[in-house]
Amino acid sequence: MEKVTLADAFASMDEAWNPRLAGELNGQAVKLAKAEGEFVWHSHAEADELFLVTDGRLRIEFRERDDAVLEAGELLVVPRGTEHRPVAEPEADILLFEPAGTRNTGDVENDLTREELESVGD
Amino acid sequence: MEKVTLADAFASMDEAWNPRLAGELNGQAVKLAKAEGEFVWHSHAEADELFLVTDGRLRIEFRERDDAVLEAGELLVVPRGTEHRPVAEPEADILLFEPAGTRNTGDVENDLTREELESVGD
Repeated sequence: MEKVTLADAFASMDEAWNPRLAGELNGQAVKLAKAEGEFVWHSHAEADELFLVTDGRLRIEFRERDDAVLEAGELLVVPRGTEHRPVAEPEADILLFEPAGTRNTGDVENDLTREELESVGD
Repeated sequence: MEKVTLADAFASMDEAWNPRLAGELNGQAVKLAKAEGEFVWHSHAEADELFLVTDGRLRIEFRERDDAVLEAGELLVVPRGTEHRPVAEPEADILLFEPAGTRNTGDVENDLTREELESVGD
């Protein structure tokens, strides 16, 4: 049981869109990711996904509704099955809550896909 | 699907230890609470509980290990079954992530118990 200091964890990360595992609880994962520019359009069939921006600005684009713009200290839950594309403007630090094992690119597999996550501090 | 601005949500709350529901996902709840002074010793038999401090300082006391002190931007997962007591020094704004329906006072029922939570913005 070790606390995680978000600023230190983000300072240790250099690659955008490469999430680290910050904790697991009740079958869910807490992940941290640095974001830069556009991610890929994707959805998660079985996973609602929470985005909490801790620094910078993240726009989340949707196919069938207006974009959401999250500044630091703002959170949004994207329901399962909702196609979305995160876009950092130009960079953001984000915390994600979602079921353990949720693939970052959802139904898409490309060069941004990360299957095995390192833990914060590794 | 509405974003939550943590600062606005906390600004709308005046009673300490009276959590509000900020979102639900995957059977889990995201709760916000203002903390002031000592809470009650308790544990959650079936629920791991994440504390993220967004303002102020929260000390979490344990029976069988050293206290954890969380400053703003720090998080800790308290495993199920672990007796703990949150103590804000002197105040803190905290975000909790835990299974939906988890009672704030766990195995204890007293005047701090809150069974039905209002949502942020209500």
